[in-house]
Amino acid sequence: MSKITIGTLANRLGLSKATVSKALKDSYEISSETKKKVLSLASDLNYVPNPYASGLRSRKSKTIAVVLPEIADNFFALAINGIQSVAAAKNYHVLIYLSHENFENEKDILSQCASGRVDGILISVSNETTETAHLDKVRSKSIPLVFFDRTIESFPSPKVLTNDYECGIMAAKHLLEKGCHYPIFLSLSDRLSICQKRSQGFINTLHKMGFPGSKQMHFVIDNAESDGNVIVQLRNIFKAHPRIDGIVASVEKIAIQIYFLGLNIPKDLKIIAFSALQTASILNPPLSTISQPAFEMGKNAAEILFSMIERRKKTVPDDFIMTIPSVLVERASTQ
Amino acid sequence: MSKITIGTLANRLGLSKATVSKALKDSYEISSETKKKVLSLASDLNYVPNPYASGLRSRKSKTIAVVLPEIADNFFALAINGIQSVAAAKNYHVLIYLSHENFENEKDILSQCASGRVDGILISVSNETTETAHLDKVRSKSIPLVFFDRTIESFPSPKVLTNDYECGIMAAKHLLEKGCHYPIFLSLSDRLSICQKRSQGFINTLHKMGFPGSKQMHFVIDNAESDGNVIVQLRNIFKAHPRIDGIVASVEKIAIQIYFLGLNIPKDLKIIAFSALQTASILNPPLSTISQPAFEMGKNAAEILFSMIERRKKTVPDDFIMTIPSVLVERASTQ
Repeated sequence: MSKITIGTLANRLGLSKATVSKALKDSYEISSETKKKVLSLASDLNYVPNPYASGLRSRKSKTIAVVLPEIADNFFALAINGIQSVAAAKNYHVLIYLSHENFENEKDILSQCASGRVDGILISVSNETTETAHLDKVRSKSIPLVFFDRTIESFPSPKVLTNDYECGIMAAKHLLEKGCHYPIFLSLSDRLSICQKRSQGFINTLHKMGFPGSKQMHFVIDNAESDGNVIVQLRNIFKAHPRIDGIVASVEKIAIQIYFLGLNIPKDLKIIAFSALQTASILNPPLSTISQPAFEMGKNAAEILFSMIERRKKTVPDDFIMTIPSVLVERASTQ
Repeated sequence: MSKITIGTLANRLGLSKATVSKALKDSYEISSETKKKVLSLASDLNYVPNPYASGLRSRKSKTIAVVLPEIADNFFALAINGIQSVAAAKNYHVLIYLSHENFENEKDILSQCASGRVDGILISVSNETTETAHLDKVRSKSIPLVFFDRTIESFPSPKVLTNDYECGIMAAKHLLEKGCHYPIFLSLSDRLSICQKRSQGFINTLHKMGFPGSKQMHFVIDNAESDGNVIVQLRNIFKAHPRIDGIVASVEKIAIQIYFLGLNIPKDLKIIAFSALQTASILNPPLSTISQPAFEMGKNAAEILFSMIERRKKTVPDDFIMTIPSVLVERASTQ
């Protein structure tokens, strides 16, 4: 069908694309003569405006997108509250999209976002995401994008993170101090940079403390979207490695499933989890956590995004990284 | 500025609005003669297409909106999973909007949805919502809308609910069987029909069992978005009514804050909560719950919405109500 674009009209009339676009939108900045000329040519050439592309970008959708892997996690729930605290003050809508840890979903979502539906994007990537073509597409349309928590390190957009590597060190030291002889790290994915860093901090510390490398100290729980999958894999790990006596869980859902196993915590197994779980202190036993500053991370990521959208002061550099430290909260599960 | 609409063009040309709309969109259904005529008049009259209104409705946005009061609640997290299980199979995007229990937010969100951004809406209303003008607006644009869980009873749209009144009865009987002498109901809001029904079932049962009406048996926790607000109000209630020995919490966040008070549960206080809390069974003590079928409610609401969007079979009647029962799960908090 017709492929006449605003560019075609602009070329033929010797006008800028912006002028043509404004004329089509009946902007007060454009004279009625020019408008008439543009609409007349548009009619002659059978130009059909694309409602997704036209108008929405320049008109500002007053909407930002938050792209998350999942929602049933206290970290993301709190991060959303932080994001919305900023967006509300700006009178912006927040659209929440869930990738469900699926890269194809994430691609679809960003493609929809890139079509002009939103003025900016906050993203925490799925645990399958390693390519960046879908992010490049957003970037090529100059739609501001900020990562929070889960990031693609190589991608040139601002990032709001916590000190994952240091937290891995803290977790290892904590379990060793509490007398563990065979602590392990349970990761959600080897592709996620935050899990890699947490695990690296953990493993490097154990090596420094003289732990033999022959023991497997890092395990990945696959397809953790399903609780049943998590339980089965946990049982297999404990069966194959009965001497495991300490766990660092990279996310709260893994910790919760370990509680469901009915082991004697902390006597037989000590456990600490990266988690913002609200019920951590009233679990039986209370769960030691490395508590991420979820609300603050969401809030700061949103503030950076709005400074990009509004182009306030100087532009935020692409390699900008803000790191907000997490806190180890010791409870009975590691005593 | 110009107020020329598709209707104006249609009138002048003696065509239907649908034909004009399709001509403007370069539809293959319209002859090139007609297209030319329409575009020519559009140009003469300075018609400016509204990108929000045009195209998006008929072209299908392939997107549905889910409007929720909050996200930090296992019920809504699970309901979203149910909704997305249906939407994914239909290749639809799901946009999640949070009202944060604020009626003004909810109005803004629905106004944005009504502008053609989505093909249908699933909503669980805020606890401030009593008026329906914002819902009327959606209805006037023929955008399908289905309530789930929190509903406006008088509004003519399909609803997916649980048996709230019966659950109130079950909760009352349960606490009396467990020996409570002064059980109370803690509501999130007197405006929410689901809280009203739960409370009515509870109070009617107590009256039937001969409990004196002089005791206050129903309390409202205001502004429960803030945990601090909940704690302060709980303390005041227990101070003013020290003989309270049983609680029905209408939502999980109230139950969690009661645990934080450090009372002796179940010896001094028995508690049961309307909740889909994943950690209920590993709390100290495990929390008795009335477990709503969250996933199923979301799934069924989405299926009804899609049957409306796709106009399959006959139209779903406006007064259609599906009720999926909840289940009382007894745990140590009421033993």
